[in-house]
Amino acid sequence: MRGFVRRHTVEDALAIIDTHLHPLAGEFVPLSAANGRVLADDIVSHYDVPGFDRAMMDGYAMRADDTNSAAQENPVSLNVIADAFPGRPFQNSVAAAHAVRIMTGAPLPDGCDAVVPVELVDASNGGSHIKAFAPVSAGKHVGHRGEDVVSGTNVFKRARVLRPQDLGVLSSIGQGQIHVIRKPRVRLVVTGDELLPAGSSPRASSVVDANGPMLAALAERDGAVIHFPGPIPDERDGMLRAMLADADVIIVSGGSSVGIEDHAPSLLLEHGELIVHGIAMRPGAPTGFGRVGERLVFLLPGNPVSCLCAYDFFAGRSIRALGGRPKEWPYRSIVAPLARSITSPIGRLSYARVQVVDGRVEQLAVVGASVLSSTTRADGFVVVPAESGGFAAETDVTVWLYG
Amino acid sequence: MRGFVRRHTVEDALAIIDTHLHPLAGEFVPLSAANGRVLADDIVSHYDVPGFDRAMMDGYAMRADDTNSAAQENPVSLNVIADAFPGRPFQNSVAAAHAVRIMTGAPLPDGCDAVVPVELVDASNGGSHIKAFAPVSAGKHVGHRGEDVVSGTNVFKRARVLRPQDLGVLSSIGQGQIHVIRKPRVRLVVTGDELLPAGSSPRASSVVDANGPMLAALAERDGAVIHFPGPIPDERDGMLRAMLADADVIIVSGGSSVGIEDHAPSLLLEHGELIVHGIAMRPGAPTGFGRVGERLVFLLPGNPVSCLCAYDFFAGRSIRALGGRPKEWPYRSIVAPLARSITSPIGRLSYARVQVVDGRVEQLAVVGASVLSSTTRADGFVVVPAESGGFAAETDVTVWLYG
Repeated sequence: MRGFVRRHTVEDALAIIDTHLHPLAGEFVPLSAANGRVLADDIVSHYDVPGFDRAMMDGYAMRADDTNSAAQENPVSLNVIADAFPGRPFQNSVAAAHAVRIMTGAPLPDGCDAVVPVELVDASNGGSHIKAFAPVSAGKHVGHRGEDVVSGTNVFKRARVLRPQDLGVLSSIGQGQIHVIRKPRVRLVVTGDELLPAGSSPRASSVVDANGPMLAALAERDGAVIHFPGPIPDERDGMLRAMLADADVIIVSGGSSVGIEDHAPSLLLEHGELIVHGIAMRPGAPTGFGRVGERLVFLLPGNPVSCLCAYDFFAGRSIRALGGRPKEWPYRSIVAPLARSITSPIGRLSYARVQVVDGRVEQLAVVGASVLSSTTRADGFVVVPAESGGFAAETDVTVWLYG
Repeated sequence: MRGFVRRHTVEDALAIIDTHLHPLAGEFVPLSAANGRVLADDIVSHYDVPGFDRAMMDGYAMRADDTNSAAQENPVSLNVIADAFPGRPFQNSVAAAHAVRIMTGAPLPDGCDAVVPVELVDASNGGSHIKAFAPVSAGKHVGHRGEDVVSGTNVFKRARVLRPQDLGVLSSIGQGQIHVIRKPRVRLVVTGDELLPAGSSPRASSVVDANGPMLAALAERDGAVIHFPGPIPDERDGMLRAMLADADVIIVSGGSSVGIEDHAPSLLLEHGELIVHGIAMRPGAPTGFGRVGERLVFLLPGNPVSCLCAYDFFAGRSIRALGGRPKEWPYRSIVAPLARSITSPIGRLSYARVQVVDGRVEQLAVVGASVLSSTTRADGFVVVPAESGGFAAETDVTVWLYG
């Protein structure tokens, strides 16, 4: 029986892994595929948006000065000489005492500096003249060139995770192909002679792979492109081939511990580097990290709860970092009091699955790391640090919510 | 100039729209595509998981009773008769005083009821015998049939939004095709003679469509499948054709108000129903809702901030509800004090874009509804109810975070 060389604390392991995490290079994607992607560069606008002064109301474009003397008892009459529509502007200049009927969004004609709304004038004479009954101030109901974006503005900084409205602004400044950080390519290597692929029915002495579908969904959530051809046997040659796949990250599930069937650590020792092996945490202790060439390799336990926990602490963080995303958990958190105490062995970090019932946090009845349904009954998890023996009832704790 | 027949409050409009919202029918998708989808039915397991008792440690499967008298000075010797591996079980029964070498995950042979870990026995004689130095309790290091899921259990309820670990459990109970609520099909109808399609460069008198890319990303986030062939002119025949598209939801952007170029409301009146038109909110007042046949039609203002606001209040909620999702905003919220007061006209709900700076909430300098970049500089928004004139400085307000 071999053992772990030495157990790392979670903090030490994270510090070591972090030195291997650098955002990947950029790639261009169409704007329509850019939501949620991470900008590889700052974005500077080369255009004013809008590129012209425009009407913000349906009405009449005119010179504000013409209405200086207008009053209810002394209306000013303007000669309406043309129409201006969005995309079909009036191309000439408008002289004093003249006006152009204009629709919202149409460019303001040369010579004009204001728009008087249609409901404030008398156009009852058939439309060739209007009467204004009050002064109009210069700039009224005019949207000015560059009021949204001025040419030369640094609109977004690199590493921004793009939101829906960001795509609107990018579109408006003429960006059709967006330079974003490439998605990490993740190869899942799920091993176990007892595993049937997803879609199979369970049968005698075999179980259907749970970790593969779970890890694929987790890694996609964290911005990866997944390659997962299904579970493979606990067999060194096949595992080695899979660990040499064309990928940025290899996630091995199963065979990560120190038993005679645990091939993954020795494969890393022989064909790459085994940098971390064994973590002072519960569940998830038989977790490893290493490299094969440029590939980051995560050895996750086969027990599905341990696998989820180790993914949450190490692999997910790394995938997010390679993709230029914040390393922090993507889970929402709340702070709420414990209904009952949580105990945890000093010297090991614990990942306690909890429910939140009527605003109070309850640890699920302690069940083994093989009981994945405990994580589907749970609303989230509470982390008990290694130096703590747990939390007393009524302690306010942070719950990281799965949903 | 036509006017709005009557303005609805936001609450009235939501109550009316809610009566039109019913989750769509189900469809089957492969497990690998089910993350984040919404279950159309309860899921009941037809299998125990695991389907057999199994070893949870590498060691020796045996009968606990055999070790009752074992002590350090009085070891019990067991005859090791075979090996058992995951997926390659020992098929016969194990008699008293016999043991089977077993690996983690292998089925427990008949006759055995415990596993003694390899590090607690003396197997130094070549492996044909082991010596146990202490009693082993029945069930030790055995994972019991059904400990994760018992056949007949209602594992998930309908309307659950599936999480990564849920896919693991679904896989383990033999579910390869998952019955989920169909994604709403959303047709975007973005109108404006001045609009160039995304990917164009801005040019004289034209602007590049911002609302289309923004709305597509918003609706995808809310679980829709988008059909958006690009902006179309302000022209009745083309708009009508688009409003008759094969879709569950039609989102019209632009031409939603009461001007002579605003065709969408009259098209709804003539070819369907215009149920709500005009909302007491700022921005977003010229918003409408109606139906054409079974299609829900949302008329959103062309000004991009108004468009975003109206989407957030009405269209997004409806898309989520059709897809079986919670109607609530998908935004995280925080509560924090206002750095400065926010004022708002009584009688209209306001959607104030804010930044959170050093834990305090600051409204962005008030800019027009056409300035989409205000929503990209903002961290989120604060809602001022219609009956409120605003909030004083230092008031704790809820901020809905965009990011």
